[in-house]
Amino acid sequence: MYSAFETEIIIRPDDIDMNNHVHNSKYLDYVQAARFDQMINNYKMSMEEFHSSGLNWVASTAYIEFKRALKLGDKVVVRTQLKSYSGAQVTVSFWILKKDNKVAAEGYLTYTMISLKSGKPVRIPEDIIARYTI
Amino acid sequence: MYSAFETEIIIRPDDIDMNNHVHNSKYLDYVQAARFDQMINNYKMSMEEFHSSGLNWVASTAYIEFKRALKLGDKVVVRTQLKSYSGAQVTVSFWILKKDNKVAAEGYLTYTMISLKSGKPVRIPEDIIARYTI
Amino acid sequence: MYSAFETEIIIRPDDIDMNNHVHNSKYLDYVQAARFDQMINNYKMSMEEFHSSGLNWVASTAYIEFKRALKLGDKVVVRTQLKSYSGAQVTVSFWILKKDNKVAAEGYLTYTMISLKSGKPVRIPEDIIARYTI
Amino acid sequence: MYSAFETEIIIRPDDIDMNNHVHNSKYLDYVQAARFDQMINNYKMSMEEFHSSGLNWVASTAYIEFKRALKLGDKVVVRTQLKSYSGAQVTVSFWILKKDNKVAAEGYLTYTMISLKSGKPVRIPEDIIARYTI
Repeated sequence: MYSAFETEIIIRPDDIDMNNHVHNSKYLDYVQAARFDQMINNYKMSMEEFHSSGLNWVASTAYIEFKRALKLGDKVVVRTQLKSYSGAQVTVSFWILKKDNKVAAEGYLTYTMISLKSGKPVRIPEDIIARYTI
Repeated sequence: MYSAFETEIIIRPDDIDMNNHVHNSKYLDYVQAARFDQMINNYKMSMEEFHSSGLNWVASTAYIEFKRALKLGDKVVVRTQLKSYSGAQVTVSFWILKKDNKVAAEGYLTYTMISLKSGKPVRIPEDIIARYTI
Repeated sequence: MYSAFETEIIIRPDDIDMNNHVHNSKYLDYVQAARFDQMINNYKMSMEEFHSSGLNWVASTAYIEFKRALKLGDKVVVRTQLKSYSGAQVTVSFWILKKDNKVAAEGYLTYTMISLKSGKPVRIPEDIIARYTI
Repeated sequence: MYSAFETEIIIRPDDIDMNNHVHNSKYLDYVQAARFDQMINNYKMSMEEFHSSGLNWVASTAYIEFKRALKLGDKVVVRTQLKSYSGAQVTVSFWILKKDNKVAAEGYLTYTMISLKSGKPVRIPEDIIARYTI
Protein backbone atom coordinates (compact mmCIF):
# COMPACT_ATOMS: atom_id res chain seq x y z
CA MET A 1 0.00 0.00 0.00
CA TYR A 2 1.44 3.33 -1.06
CA SER A 3 0.80 6.67 0.62
CA ALA A 4 -2.42 8.57 0.00
CA PHE A 5 -2.15 12.34 -0.41
CA GLU A 6 -4.79 15.05 -0.23
CA THR A 7 -5.27 18.39 -1.96
CA GLU A 8 -8.02 20.89 -1.31
CA ILE A 9 -9.85 22.17 -4.39
CA ILE A 10 -11.77 25.45 -4.50
CA ILE A 11 -14.91 25.18 -6.64
CA ARG A 12 -15.27 28.14 -9.01
CA PRO A 13 -18.55 29.48 -10.42
CA ASP A 14 -17.39 28.58 -13.95
CA ASP A 15 -17.29 24.91 -12.86
CA ILE A 16 -21.06 24.89 -12.33
CA ASP A 17 -23.32 23.71 -15.12
CA MET A 18 -26.98 23.84 -16.06
CA ASN A 19 -27.83 21.36 -13.28
CA ASN A 20 -26.48 23.86 -10.74
CA HIS A 21 -23.74 21.37 -9.78
CA VAL A 22 -20.09 20.98 -10.66
CA HIS A 23 -20.02 19.83 -14.29
CA ASN A 24 -19.10 16.15 -14.43
CA SER A 25 -16.00 16.44 -16.63
CA LYS A 26 -14.60 18.99 -14.15
CA TYR A 27 -14.19 16.16 -11.64
CA LEU A 28 -11.33 14.86 -13.77
CA ASP A 29 -9.85 18.37 -13.82
CA TYR A 30 -9.96 18.41 -10.03
CA VAL A 31 -8.09 15.11 -9.91
CA GLN A 32 -5.53 16.46 -12.35
CA ALA A 33 -5.08 19.60 -10.24
CA ALA A 34 -4.57 17.43 -7.17
CA ARG A 35 -1.98 15.26 -8.92
CA PHE A 36 -0.02 18.31 -10.11
CA ASP A 37 -0.05 19.67 -6.58
CA GLN A 38 1.00 16.33 -5.11
CA MET A 39 3.79 15.93 -7.66
CA ILE A 40 5.26 19.13 -6.23
CA ASN A 41 4.49 18.70 -2.56
CA ASN A 42 4.54 14.93 -2.04
CA TYR A 43 6.45 13.22 -4.84
CA LYS A 44 8.89 16.16 -4.99
CA MET A 45 9.08 16.27 -8.76
CA SER A 46 6.82 18.77 -10.51
CA MET A 47 5.38 18.23 -13.98
CA GLU A 48 7.75 20.97 -15.12
CA GLU A 49 10.71 18.91 -13.89
CA PHE A 50 9.40 15.88 -15.79
CA HIS A 51 9.24 18.08 -18.89
CA SER A 52 12.79 19.30 -18.26
CA SER A 53 13.84 15.64 -18.14
CA GLY A 54 12.22 15.09 -21.55
CA LEU A 55 9.30 13.16 -20.02
CA ASN A 56 5.57 13.66 -19.81
CA TRP A 57 2.65 11.89 -18.12
CA VAL A 58 -0.47 11.44 -20.22
CA ALA A 59 -3.79 9.91 -19.16
CA SER A 60 -4.48 6.62 -20.92
CA THR A 61 -7.59 5.47 -19.07
CA ALA A 62 -10.04 7.09 -16.71
CA TYR A 63 -12.81 5.47 -14.71
CA ILE A 64 -15.08 7.49 -12.46
CA GLU A 65 -18.22 6.84 -10.43
CA PHE A 66 -20.25 9.94 -9.66
CA LYS A 67 -21.87 9.48 -6.26
CA ARG A 68 -22.84 12.85 -4.89
CA ALA A 69 -23.27 16.23 -6.54
CA LEU A 70 -20.86 19.03 -5.67
CA LYS A 71 -22.30 22.49 -5.20
CA LEU A 72 -20.70 25.90 -5.19
CA GLY A 73 -19.45 26.46 -1.65
CA ASP A 74 -18.81 22.78 -0.93
CA LYS A 75 -15.45 22.04 0.61
CA VAL A 76 -13.69 19.54 -1.66
CA VAL A 77 -10.63 17.41 -1.04
CA VAL A 78 -9.11 15.12 -3.65
CA ARG A 79 -7.26 12.11 -2.24
CA THR A 80 -5.10 10.08 -4.58
CA GLN A 81 -3.02 6.97 -4.05
CA LEU A 82 -0.69 5.03 -6.31
CA LYS A 83 -2.28 1.62 -6.80
CA SER A 84 0.23 -0.11 -9.07
CA TYR A 85 2.89 0.46 -11.72
CA SER A 86 4.25 -1.56 -14.57
CA GLY A 87 6.43 -0.71 -17.55
CA ALA A 88 5.47 2.79 -18.67
CA GLN A 89 2.27 3.02 -16.64
CA VAL A 90 0.99 3.86 -13.20
CA THR A 91 -2.54 3.37 -11.95
CA VAL A 92 -3.73 5.95 -9.45
CA SER A 93 -6.89 5.60 -7.35
CA PHE A 94 -8.73 8.76 -6.43
CA TRP A 95 -11.54 9.86 -4.16
CA ILE A 96 -13.22 13.26 -4.37
CA LEU A 97 -14.40 13.97 -0.85
CA LYS A 98 -16.89 16.39 0.61
CA LYS A 99 -17.09 17.46 4.21
CA ASP A 100 -17.26 14.52 6.64
CA ASN A 101 -15.35 12.47 4.06
CA LYS A 102 -18.50 11.71 2.05
CA VAL A 103 -17.45 10.47 -1.36
CA ALA A 104 -18.61 12.71 -4.22
CA ALA A 105 -16.80 10.54 -6.76
CA GLU A 106 -14.18 7.83 -6.92
CA GLY A 107 -12.27 5.97 -9.57
CA TYR A 108 -8.84 5.58 -11.05
CA LEU A 109 -6.65 6.92 -13.81
CA THR A 110 -3.94 5.14 -15.71
CA TYR A 111 -1.11 7.43 -16.74
CA THR A 112 1.54 6.55 -19.29
CA MET A 113 5.00 8.04 -19.23
CA ILE A 114 6.00 9.21 -22.67
CA SER A 115 9.08 10.76 -24.18
CA LEU A 116 8.40 14.40 -25.06
CA LYS A 117 10.61 14.00 -28.12
CA SER A 118 9.19 10.82 -29.64
CA GLY A 119 5.74 10.88 -28.08
CA LYS A 120 6.21 7.15 -27.39
CA PRO A 121 5.85 5.34 -24.06
CA VAL A 122 9.04 4.89 -22.06
CA ARG A 123 9.65 2.54 -19.14
CA ILE A 124 9.43 4.52 -15.90
CA PRO A 125 13.00 5.04 -14.63
CA GLU A 126 13.93 3.44 -11.30
CA ASP A 127 14.51 6.79 -9.58
CA ILE A 128 10.99 7.88 -10.44
CA ILE A 129 9.55 4.59 -9.23
CA ALA A 130 11.42 5.21 -6.00
CA ARG A 131 9.84 8.67 -5.67
CA TYR A 132 6.36 7.34 -6.38
CA THR A 133 6.37 4.23 -4.21
CA ILE A 134 6.44 6.05 -0.92
CA MET B 1 -27.89 -4.40 -31.04
CA TYR B 2 -29.30 -0.89 -30.98
CA SER B 3 -28.62 1.82 -33.54
CA ALA B 4 -25.39 3.78 -33.49
CA PHE B 5 -25.62 7.51 -34.19
CA GLU B 6 -22.95 10.03 -35.13
CA THR B 7 -22.43 13.72 -34.44
CA GLU B 8 -19.66 15.90 -35.77
CA ILE B 9 -17.82 18.00 -33.19
CA ILE B 10 -15.87 21.15 -34.02
CA ILE B 11 -12.73 21.46 -31.88
CA ARG B 12 -12.33 24.98 -30.47
CA PRO B 13 -9.03 26.63 -29.48
CA ASP B 14 -10.20 26.81 -25.86
CA ASP B 15 -10.33 22.97 -25.85
CA ILE B 16 -6.57 22.76 -26.36
CA ASP B 17 -4.31 22.41 -23.33
CA MET B 18 -0.64 22.77 -22.47
CA ASN B 19 0.18 19.59 -24.42
CA ASN B 20 -1.17 21.26 -27.57
CA HIS B 21 -3.92 18.63 -27.78
CA VAL B 22 -7.57 18.55 -26.82
CA HIS B 23 -7.65 18.49 -23.02
CA ASN B 24 -8.61 15.02 -21.82
CA SER B 25 -11.70 15.96 -19.81
CA LYS B 26 -13.08 17.70 -22.92
CA TYR B 27 -13.53 14.28 -24.51
CA LEU B 28 -16.39 13.67 -22.09
CA ASP B 29 -17.84 17.06 -23.07
CA TYR B 30 -17.74 16.01 -26.71
CA VAL B 31 -19.64 12.82 -25.87
CA GLN B 32 -22.19 14.85 -23.92
CA ALA B 33 -22.59 17.26 -26.84
CA ALA B 34 -23.14 14.30 -29.17
CA ARG B 35 -25.75 12.76 -26.88
CA PHE B 36 -27.68 16.04 -26.60
CA ASP B 37 -27.64 16.32 -30.39
CA GLN B 38 -28.73 12.71 -30.83
CA MET B 39 -31.51 13.10 -28.27
CA ILE B 40 -32.96 15.76 -30.56
CA ASN B 41 -32.19 14.28 -33.97
CA ASN B 42 -32.27 10.51 -33.38
CA TYR B 43 -34.19 9.71 -30.20
CA LYS B 44 -36.61 12.59 -30.91
CA MET B 45 -36.78 13.77 -27.32
CA SER B 46 -34.51 16.65 -26.36
CA MET B 47 -33.07 17.12 -22.88
CA GLU B 48 -35.42 20.10 -22.60
CA GLU B 49 -38.39 17.79 -23.17
CA PHE B 50 -37.10 15.43 -20.50
CA HIS B 51 -36.92 18.41 -18.14
CA SER B 52 -40.47 19.43 -19.09
CA SER B 53 -41.55 15.90 -18.16
CA GLY B 54 -39.93 16.34 -14.74
CA LEU B 55 -37.05 14.03 -15.64
CA ASN B 56 -33.30 14.42 -15.99
CA TRP B 57 -30.42 12.21 -17.08
CA VAL B 58 -27.29 12.34 -14.95
CA ALA B 59 -23.99 10.55 -15.52
CA SER B 60 -23.33 7.88 -12.89
CA THR B 61 -20.23 6.23 -14.33
CA ALA B 62 -17.76 7.07 -17.06
CA TYR B 63 -15.01 4.92 -18.50
CA ILE B 64 -12.74 6.19 -21.23
CA GLU B 65 -9.60 4.96 -22.98
CA PHE B 66 -7.53 7.68 -24.62
CA LYS B 67 -5.92 6.25 -27.73
CA ARG B 68 -4.92 9.08 -30.03
CA ALA B 69 -4.45 12.78 -29.40
CA LEU B 70 -6.84 15.25 -31.04
CA LYS B 71 -5.36 18.41 -32.47
CA LEU B 72 -6.93 21.68 -33.46
CA GLY B 73 -8.18 21.22 -37.02
CA ASP B 74 -8.85 17.49 -36.66
CA LYS B 75 -12.24 16.39 -37.93
CA VAL B 76 -14.01 14.66 -35.03
CA VAL B 77 -17.09 12.47 -35.02
CA VAL B 78 -18.64 11.03 -31.87
CA ARG B 79 -20.51 7.76 -32.36
CA THR B 80 -22.69 6.51 -29.53
CA GLN B 81 -24.80 3.41 -29.15
CA LEU B 82 -27.14 2.22 -26.43
CA LYS B 83 -25.59 -0.93 -24.99
CA SER B 84 -28.11 -1.91 -22.32
CA TYR B 85 -30.75 -0.57 -19.95
CA SER B 86 -32.14 -1.68 -16.63
CA GLY B 87 -34.31 0.01 -14.02
CA ALA B 88 -33.31 3.68 -13.96
CA GLN B 89 -30.12 3.27 -15.96
CA VAL B 90 -28.83 3.08 -19.50
CA THR B 91 -25.31 2.23 -20.55
CA VAL B 92 -24.09 3.97 -23.68
CA SER B 93 -20.94 3.00 -25.59
CA PHE B 94 -19.06 5.75 -27.38
CA TRP B 95 -16.25 6.13 -29.87
CA ILE B 96 -14.53 9.42 -30.65
CA LEU B 97 -13.34 9.07 -34.22
CA LYS B 98 -10.83 10.94 -36.31
CA LYS B 99 -10.64 10.95 -40.06
CA ASP B 100 -10.50 7.43 -41.56
CA ASN B 101 -12.41 6.24 -38.49
CA LYS B 102 -9.28 6.03 -36.37
CA VAL B 103 -10.34 5.83 -32.73
CA ALA B 104 -9.16 8.79 -30.63
CA ALA B 105 -10.99 7.45 -27.57
CA GLU B 106 -13.62 4.94 -26.63
CA GLY B 107 -15.55 3.93 -23.58
CA TYR B 108 -18.98 4.02 -22.03
CA LEU B 109 -21.15 6.12 -19.79
CA THR B 110 -23.88 4.98 -17.46
CA TYR B 111 -26.68 7.50 -17.13
CA THR B 112 -29.34 7.41 -14.44
CA MET B 113 -32.79 8.86 -14.93
CA ILE B 114 -33.78 10.98 -11.97
CA SER B 115 -36.85 12.92 -10.98
CA LEU B 116 -36.13 16.65 -11.16
CA LYS B 117 -38.34 17.15 -8.13
CA SER B 118 -36.95 14.53 -5.76
CA GLY B 119 -33.48 14.12 -7.26
CA LYS B 120 -34.00 10.34 -6.86
CA PRO B 121 -33.67 7.67 -9.53
CA VAL B 122 -36.85 6.69 -11.33
CA ARG B 123 -37.49 3.60 -13.45
CA ILE B 124 -37.26 4.56 -17.11
CA PRO B 125 -40.83 4.74 -18.47
CA GLU B 126 -41.78 2.26 -21.23
CA ASP B 127 -42.33 4.99 -23.84
CA ILE B 128 -38.79 6.25 -23.33
CA ILE B 129 -37.39 2.72 -23.54
CA ALA B 130 -39.27 2.40 -26.82
CA ARG B 131 -37.65 5.61 -28.12
CA TYR B 132 -34.17 4.52 -27.05
CA THR B 133 -34.21 0.91 -28.23
CA ILE B 134 -34.25 1.72 -31.91
CA MET C 1 -13.68 55.56 -2.78
CA TYR C 2 -15.13 52.22 -1.77
CA SER C 3 -13.23 49.35 -0.17
CA ALA C 4 -11.07 47.06 -2.25
CA PHE C 5 -11.16 43.35 -1.43
CA GLU C 6 -8.82 40.54 -2.37
CA THR C 7 -9.27 36.84 -3.09
CA GLU C 8 -6.56 34.33 -3.82
CA ILE C 9 -7.10 32.15 -6.89
CA ILE C 10 -5.42 28.78 -7.42
CA ILE C 11 -4.51 28.22 -11.08
CA ARG C 12 -5.50 24.74 -12.26
CA PRO C 13 -3.87 22.79 -15.10
CA ASP C 14 -7.13 22.89 -17.06
CA ASP C 15 -6.84 26.70 -17.14
CA ILE C 16 -3.68 26.49 -19.24
CA ASP C 17 -3.95 26.73 -23.00
CA MET C 18 -1.79 26.02 -26.05
CA ASN C 19 0.43 29.01 -25.23
CA ASN C 20 1.33 27.37 -21.93
CA HIS C 21 -0.32 30.27 -20.06
CA VAL C 22 -3.67 30.78 -18.39
CA HIS C 23 -6.22 30.99 -21.21
CA ASN C 24 -7.36 34.59 -21.62
CA SER C 25 -11.09 34.06 -21.06
CA LYS C 26 -10.26 32.35 -17.75
CA TYR C 27 -9.18 35.74 -16.40
CA LEU C 28 -12.85 36.73 -16.36
CA ASP C 29 -13.65 33.48 -14.56
CA TYR C 30 -11.07 34.37 -11.92
CA VAL C 31 -12.70 37.77 -11.43
CA GLN C 32 -16.10 36.11 -11.14
CA ALA C 33 -14.75 33.63 -8.58
CA ALA C 34 -13.32 36.55 -6.59
CA ARG C 35 -16.62 38.44 -6.66
CA PHE C 36 -18.57 35.39 -5.48
CA ASP C 37 -16.09 34.96 -2.64
CA GLN C 38 -16.24 38.63 -1.72
CA MET C 39 -20.04 38.65 -1.82
CA ILE C 40 -19.90 36.06 0.97
CA ASN C 41 -16.94 37.32 2.98
CA ASN C 42 -16.99 41.09 2.43
CA TYR C 43 -20.43 42.22 1.27
CA LYS C 44 -22.06 39.57 3.49
CA MET C 45 -24.69 38.57 0.95
CA SER C 46 -23.92 35.50 -1.14
CA MET C 47 -25.16 35.04 -4.69
CA GLU C 48 -27.42 32.32 -3.25
CA GLU C 49 -29.03 34.90 -0.95
CA PHE C 50 -29.57 37.23 -3.92
CA HIS C 51 -31.28 34.34 -5.69
CA SER C 52 -33.43 33.65 -2.62
CA SER C 53 -34.47 37.32 -2.75
CA GLY C 54 -35.55 36.84 -6.37
CA LEU C 55 -32.56 38.80 -7.67
CA ASN C 56 -29.57 38.01 -9.85
CA TRP C 57 -26.46 39.86 -11.00
CA VAL C 58 -25.52 39.49 -14.66
CA ALA C 59 -22.50 40.90 -16.46
CA SER C 60 -23.45 43.59 -18.98
CA THR C 61 -20.03 44.85 -19.99
CA ALA C 62 -16.48 43.63 -19.52
CA TYR C 63 -13.25 45.43 -20.32
CA ILE C 64 -9.89 43.82 -19.72
CA GLU C 65 -6.27 44.64 -20.49
CA PHE C 66 -3.94 41.65 -20.51
CA LYS C 67 -0.53 42.77 -19.28
CA ARG C 68 1.41 39.76 -18.10
CA ALA C 69 0.96 36.07 -18.71
CA LEU C 70 -0.01 33.82 -15.83
CA LYS C 71 1.71 30.45 -15.59
CA LEU C 72 0.84 27.34 -13.68
CA GLY C 73 2.30 27.79 -10.20
CA ASP C 74 1.94 31.57 -10.17
CA LYS C 75 0.36 32.98 -7.05
CA VAL C 76 -2.69 34.99 -8.13
CA VAL C 77 -4.77 37.49 -6.21
CA VAL C 78 -7.84 39.21 -7.62
CA ARG C 79 -8.57 42.64 -6.15
CA THR C 80 -11.93 44.22 -6.90
CA GLN C 81 -13.42 47.55 -5.93
CA LEU C 82 -16.83 49.08 -6.49
CA LYS C 83 -16.29 52.11 -8.72
CA SER C 84 -19.82 53.44 -9.12
CA TYR C 85 -23.49 52.48 -9.11
CA SER C 86 -26.58 53.85 -10.75
CA GLY C 87 -30.08 52.51 -11.23
CA ALA C 88 -29.78 48.77 -11.80
CA GLN C 89 -26.03 48.75 -12.39
CA VAL C 90 -22.73 48.66 -10.58
CA THR C 91 -19.32 49.11 -12.13
CA VAL C 92 -16.53 47.12 -10.49
CA SER C 93 -12.83 47.68 -11.16
CA PHE C 94 -10.55 44.68 -10.93
CA TRP C 95 -6.84 43.91 -10.89
CA ILE C 96 -5.40 40.43 -11.31
CA LEU C 97 -2.13 40.51 -9.40
CA LYS C 98 0.92 38.29 -9.40
CA LYS C 99 3.54 38.11 -6.70
CA ASP C 100 4.98 41.53 -5.80
CA ASN C 101 1.67 43.05 -6.91
CA LYS C 102 2.64 43.00 -10.57
CA VAL C 103 -0.52 43.47 -12.63
CA ALA C 104 -1.34 40.48 -14.86
CA ALA C 105 -4.55 42.12 -16.02
CA GLU C 106 -6.88 44.94 -15.10
CA GLY C 107 -10.22 46.27 -16.19
CA TYR C 108 -13.81 46.61 -15.10
CA LEU C 109 -17.13 44.83 -15.27
CA THR C 110 -20.58 46.34 -15.28
CA TYR C 111 -23.14 44.14 -13.60
CA THR C 112 -26.89 44.62 -13.88
CA MET C 113 -29.29 43.53 -11.21
CA ILE C 114 -32.19 41.64 -12.70
CA SER C 115 -35.35 40.07 -11.37
CA LEU C 116 -35.07 36.27 -11.55
CA LYS C 117 -38.76 36.13 -12.37
CA SER C 118 -39.00 38.68 -15.18
CA GLY C 119 -35.38 38.67 -16.31
CA LYS C 120 -35.63 42.49 -16.44
CA PRO C 121 -33.36 45.02 -14.74
CA VAL C 122 -34.47 46.24 -11.34
CA ARG C 123 -33.24 49.30 -9.44
CA ILE C 124 -30.75 48.18 -6.79
CA PRO C 125 -32.56 48.32 -3.43
CA GLU C 126 -31.20 50.76 -0.82
CA ASP C 127 -30.19 48.02 1.61
CA ILE C 128 -28.01 46.42 -1.04
CA ILE C 129 -26.45 49.76 -1.94
CA ALA C 130 -25.67 50.13 1.75
CA ARG C 131 -23.95 46.74 1.79
CA TYR C 132 -21.93 47.50 -1.33
CA THR C 133 -20.79 51.06 -0.54
CA ILE C 134 -18.52 50.09 2.29
CA MET D 1 -13.65 49.46 -44.29
CA TYR D 2 -12.24 45.97 -44.31
CA SER D 3 -14.17 42.78 -45.03
CA ALA D 4 -16.36 41.20 -42.37
CA PHE D 5 -16.31 37.41 -42.10
CA GLU D 6 -18.67 35.01 -40.38
CA THR D 7 -18.25 31.67 -38.64
CA GLU D 8 -20.98 29.51 -37.22
CA ILE D 9 -20.46 28.29 -33.66
CA ILE D 10 -22.17 25.23 -32.18
CA ILE D 11 -23.09 25.76 -28.53
CA ARG D 12 -22.12 22.77 -26.40
CA PRO D 13 -23.79 21.72 -23.13
CA ASP D 14 -20.51 22.34 -21.26
CA ASP D 15 -20.76 26.03 -22.29
CA ILE D 16 -23.94 26.46 -20.23
CA ASP D 17 -23.66 27.77 -16.68
CA MET D 18 -25.80 27.97 -13.56
CA ASN D 19 -28.00 30.64 -15.20
CA ASN D 20 -28.92 28.12 -17.91
CA HIS D 21 -27.23 30.35 -20.53
CA VAL D 22 -23.89 30.32 -22.27
CA HIS D 23 -21.34 31.31 -19.63
CA ASN D 24 -20.15 34.86 -20.26
CA SER D 25 -16.43 34.16 -20.63
CA LYS D 26 -17.29 31.57 -23.32
CA TYR D 27 -18.33 34.45 -25.59
CA LEU D 28 -14.65 35.35 -25.90
CA ASP D 29 -13.88 31.71 -26.70
CA TYR D 30 -16.46 31.83 -29.48
CA VAL D 31 -14.80 34.93 -30.93
CA GLN D 32 -11.41 33.22 -30.72
CA ALA D 33 -12.80 30.13 -32.47
CA ALA D 34 -14.21 32.36 -35.21
CA ARG D 35 -10.89 34.15 -35.69
CA PHE D 36 -8.96 30.88 -35.94
CA ASP D 37 -11.45 29.66 -38.54
CA GLN D 38 -11.28 32.93 -40.47
CA MET D 39 -7.49 32.92 -40.38
CA ILE D 40 -7.66 29.65 -42.30
CA ASN D 41 -10.61 30.32 -44.58
CA ASN D 42 -10.51 34.07 -45.14
CA TYR D 43 -7.07 35.45 -44.36
CA LYS D 44 -5.46 32.26 -45.73
CA MET D 45 -2.85 32.00 -43.01
CA SER D 46 -3.65 29.68 -40.11
CA MET D 47 -2.40 30.23 -36.58
CA GLU D 48 -0.18 27.19 -37.17
CA GLU D 49 1.44 28.98 -40.10
CA PHE D 50 2.03 32.05 -37.94
CA HIS D 51 3.72 29.78 -35.41
CA SER D 52 5.84 28.21 -38.15
CA SER D 53 6.93 31.74 -39.08
CA GLY D 54 8.02 32.32 -35.47
CA LEU D 55 5.05 34.60 -34.80
CA ASN D 56 2.06 34.51 -32.48
CA TRP D 57 -1.03 36.65 -31.91
CA VAL D 58 -1.95 37.35 -28.30
CA ALA D 59 -4.96 39.26 -26.99
CA SER D 60 -3.97 42.54 -25.35
CA THR D 61 -7.39 44.08 -24.74
CA ALA D 62 -10.95 42.82 -24.84
CA TYR D 63 -14.16 44.80 -24.60
CA ILE D 64 -17.54 43.13 -24.73
CA GLU D 65 -21.14 44.18 -24.23
CA PHE D 66 -23.50 41.35 -23.36
CA LYS D 67 -26.89 42.10 -24.87
CA ARG D 68 -28.88 38.89 -25.14
CA ALA D 69 -28.46 35.52 -23.48
CA LEU D 70 -27.53 32.53 -25.60
CA LYS D 71 -29.28 29.27 -24.87
CA LEU D 72 -28.45 25.72 -25.80
CA GLY D 73 -29.89 25.16 -29.25
CA ASP D 74 -29.50 28.77 -30.37
CA LYS D 75 -27.92 29.21 -33.76
CA VAL D 76 -24.85 31.42 -33.30
CA VAL D 77 -22.76 33.25 -35.84
CA VAL D 78 -19.66 35.27 -34.98
CA ARG D 79 -18.89 38.11 -37.38
CA THR D 80 -15.52 39.81 -37.10
CA GLN D 81 -13.98 42.70 -38.98
CA LEU D 82 -10.56 44.30 -38.90
CA LYS D 83 -11.05 47.84 -37.64
CA SER D 84 -7.52 49.20 -37.63
CA TYR D 85 -3.88 48.24 -37.34
CA SER D 86 -0.76 49.98 -36.17
CA GLY D 87 2.74 48.79 -35.32
CA ALA D 88 2.40 45.37 -33.69
CA GLN D 89 -1.35 45.57 -33.14
CA VAL D 90 -4.65 45.00 -34.85
CA THR D 91 -8.07 45.91 -33.50
CA VAL D 92 -10.87 43.56 -34.49
CA SER D 93 -14.56 44.34 -34.02
CA PHE D 94 -16.89 41.43 -33.38
CA TRP D 95 -20.60 40.71 -33.21
CA ILE D 96 -22.07 37.51 -31.82
CA LEU D 97 -25.34 37.07 -33.67
CA LYS D 98 -28.40 34.98 -33.03
CA LYS D 99 -31.03 34.07 -35.58
CA ASP D 100 -32.44 37.11 -37.42
CA ASN D 101 -29.11 38.85 -36.80
CA LYS D 102 -30.06 39.85 -33.27
CA VAL D 103 -26.92 40.85 -31.42
CA ALA D 104 -26.14 38.63 -28.43
CA ALA D 105 -22.89 40.51 -27.78
CA GLU D 106 -20.55 42.91 -29.49
CA GLY D 107 -17.18 44.45 -28.82
CA TYR D 108 -13.59 44.43 -29.95
CA LEU D 109 -10.30 42.75 -29.27
CA THR D 110 -6.83 44.16 -29.68
CA TYR D 111 -4.29 41.54 -30.66
CA THR D 112 -0.54 42.03 -30.52
CA MET D 113 1.85 40.19 -32.77
CA ILE D 114 4.74 38.77 -30.79
CA SER D 115 7.86 36.84 -31.61
CA LEU D 116 7.54 33.28 -30.35
CA LYS D 117 11.23 33.31 -29.52
CA SER D 118 11.52 36.57 -27.57
CA GLY D 119 7.90 36.93 -26.46
CA LYS D 120 8.19 40.61 -27.45
CA PRO D 121 5.93 42.58 -29.80
CA VAL D 122 7.04 42.77 -33.41
CA ARG D 123 5.83 45.16 -36.10
CA ILE D 124 3.34 43.35 -38.32
CA PRO D 125 5.12 42.50 -41.58
CA GLU D 126 3.79 44.11 -44.78
CA ASP D 127 2.74 40.80 -46.32
CA ILE D 128 0.56 40.05 -43.32
CA ILE D 129 -0.95 43.52 -43.43
CA ALA D 130 -1.74 42.84 -47.08
CA ARG D 131 -3.50 39.59 -46.14
CA TYR D 132 -5.50 41.24 -43.37
CA THR D 133 -6.58 44.43 -45.14
CA ILE D 134 -8.88 42.73 -47.58
